[in-house]
Amino acid sequence: MLIVQKYGGTSVADVERMKNVAKRAVATRKKGDSVVVVVSAMAGETDRLIALAAEITDNPDSREMDMIMSSGERVSSALTALAIRDFGEKSLSFTGRQVGIETDASHTKARIKKITAERLKKALKAGYIPVVAGFQGIGPKDEVTTLGRGGSDTSAVAIAAAIGADRCEIYTDVDGVYTTDPNVVPGARKLDKISYDEMLEMASLGAKVLQTRSVEFAKKYNVPVLVRSSFNNNPGTLVTKEDKNMEKVSVAGIAYDKNQAKITVVNVPDKPGIAAELFRGLAKANINVDMIVQNISSDGKRADISFTIPKTDSQKTMKVTRKIAKKLDAEKVDLLDNISKVSIIGVGMRSHSGVASKMFDTFAAHGINIMMISTSEIKVSCVVDAMYTELAVRVLHDAFELETEAK
Amino acid sequence: MLIVQKYGGTSVADVERMKNVAKRAVATRKKGDSVVVVVSAMAGETDRLIALAAEITDNPDSREMDMIMSSGERVSSALTALAIRDFGEKSLSFTGRQVGIETDASHTKARIKKITAERLKKALKAGYIPVVAGFQGIGPKDEVTTLGRGGSDTSAVAIAAAIGADRCEIYTDVDGVYTTDPNVVPGARKLDKISYDEMLEMASLGAKVLQTRSVEFAKKYNVPVLVRSSFNNNPGTLVTKEDKNMEKVSVAGIAYDKNQAKITVVNVPDKPGIAAELFRGLAKANINVDMIVQNISSDGKRADISFTIPKTDSQKTMKVTRKIAKKLDAEKVDLLDNISKVSIIGVGMRSHSGVASKMFDTFAAHGINIMMISTSEIKVSCVVDAMYTELAVRVLHDAFELETEAK
Repeated sequence: MLIVQKYGGTSVADVERMKNVAKRAVATRKKGDSVVVVVSAMAGETDRLIALAAEITDNPDSREMDMIMSSGERVSSALTALAIRDFGEKSLSFTGRQVGIETDASHTKARIKKITAERLKKALKAGYIPVVAGFQGIGPKDEVTTLGRGGSDTSAVAIAAAIGADRCEIYTDVDGVYTTDPNVVPGARKLDKISYDEMLEMASLGAKVLQTRSVEFAKKYNVPVLVRSSFNNNPGTLVTKEDKNMEKVSVAGIAYDKNQAKITVVNVPDKPGIAAELFRGLAKANINVDMIVQNISSDGKRADISFTIPKTDSQKTMKVTRKIAKKLDAEKVDLLDNISKVSIIGVGMRSHSGVASKMFDTFAAHGINIMMISTSEIKVSCVVDAMYTELAVRVLHDAFELETEAK
Repeated sequence: MLIVQKYGGTSVADVERMKNVAKRAVATRKKGDSVVVVVSAMAGETDRLIALAAEITDNPDSREMDMIMSSGERVSSALTALAIRDFGEKSLSFTGRQVGIETDASHTKARIKKITAERLKKALKAGYIPVVAGFQGIGPKDEVTTLGRGGSDTSAVAIAAAIGADRCEIYTDVDGVYTTDPNVVPGARKLDKISYDEMLEMASLGAKVLQTRSVEFAKKYNVPVLVRSSFNNNPGTLVTKEDKNMEKVSVAGIAYDKNQAKITVVNVPDKPGIAAELFRGLAKANINVDMIVQNISSDGKRADISFTIPKTDSQKTMKVTRKIAKKLDAEKVDLLDNISKVSIIGVGMRSHSGVASKMFDTFAAHGINIMMISTSEIKVSCVVDAMYTELAVRVLHDAFELETEAK
């Protein structure tokens, strides 16, 4: 088998842990598999570098930030290669550029366009355990780029796709993907398997196990991804293509996201095109709008338009929205930022009816008011007051019987 | 003018100092000059990285070490570029590879073969202050290489040569080049000017102001190098081609090196070729032999061969030497490692006679025994007992009247 193993920052946080990573890679090799290791920077290193830059300027240039941040993975990859050599296997570290991870030019959040992986294939053929610096690539003008927080996951899956690996193993500090955050629900159950689509929803709805784009890659190239802990030998969670078994369960997991804010443009004259004008303006300012609700007054002449955004973008969004609201002749713009989004996810929803109403009923039974709702084929999200977040997650976990092996 | 400014590790040791570096570069630019900045890693960073690797293995692969060590300069160059931008000038950081610093394949001590500097020239033309990561280059097989301790000096001078700079300024934590180590002789005088050849001898004989190879580059391409402090505006020392004035002084400076050991192969049968065999063997083992003395016994049948090496190579050298000595049928091999080398340097020696004998007389008058002597056109070196090092430097400094402006 050809296996890509990705180790996150906590798994290479210090020299002892790096040696454990090396040991695991070497053990896999000795079993007869070929292994490519992908590493993140040592835990805390990227933050340390960002803090240094923040001391220098409030407005750091993103090209320079990429040069700075990418250095963490260079160091951890070379150190890991040294550790593997010390265990007697051949190893070589590679930067993103050296394995040909070509990205677009969007510094600090570049997208992978192509991976040539020539040196990687050659090294594998020659019996090496290559160690690739995650999180980084090379832009169209020979500039160093980085792939955004969690980008090493995407490096790993993309490399697995490029070299036709049988599996991509993502090593982290948790045992796998859980039905929900075990910090909120101690009885949360580890999932043995989850579909790409479910994982995509989980990731984009706030579960922090995998970077969303890594799952998109895995789905697109059909790379089985195994999420597991680097601190034990538990089997982990396999992220894979949908199978019949998965559909038997109506809800696979519950996610929540507290980084939410709701902005309401109050009392806009309801003319055709107002929503278009508002959201065109927000898109131009690179603001990621999530849910949208429009209420029209009973006389049909005025409307309130509400939308949610990441809370961290609140100030910037308010500025842009106020400008547009003025042009639209709205009364005012309100910001509500003590909210959170709670979501249920499951491919089983497609065949199980009544899932959404069960969610609403559960909330009602516990006095949790729903402010906004959005649905897709395999998820239902509700915006609720932030103070109800944990309660909402717990009662849903109970209601959908996620704690027990629900088959 | 086109000026290359190189800042050492202590000059970019923290964010405040980096801002000072930026301020200086910006001030130079505002005066109408074009500036290229070359930086070392933040002081202590390279040692921190080496220590990490040492925790992993006693025998780190040099290719991986280069990957690890080169990251320090990447970070400091990008941070410095951010600081320059924050002062309102355009700036871009570049890695060794990005400015085309091509080296040979000798990891951790690579030699620069060529600098294309295309992106550098383009950036200068467009009004940027480029900040280049020192100490690093790119080897023939696209591998990251480093230039050895002090290699950023060489980066700077080589870049200055490549872009035809009018001057290379080396900023450090001292005011310039002194007649000798001010820690040993408080009255040591800062030199206004020193010739390339003198500086070369100073550097290779233990003065730590500039990397020897940087001076070789400066001499080869006739780049004026100004050594000065980044903490004040003192004028510094200009390293330049020899002029008449320099020859007026017999001795320009005094250097000492405590990293010395002497090995003696005792009682070798004196046959033709024994020295050749010994030193061929040492060269093969990559041992850098400095001085050599051969004493032949009065009957002409046996000889003692002594040579000096860096003390840090003692154990390795003894091992190799013992093996060869056995083959040569020598009686034994002795190691003496409490010695040091004290040297006087000056292009004036060419025209001033009696300089060497004045050195020997001075030593004799102070009871300092000379163990070995080696001379070149512009220097005399003596090996003495290590405990006399400071005394030897002080009495020579007095004897050659270096404290006063000797013209």
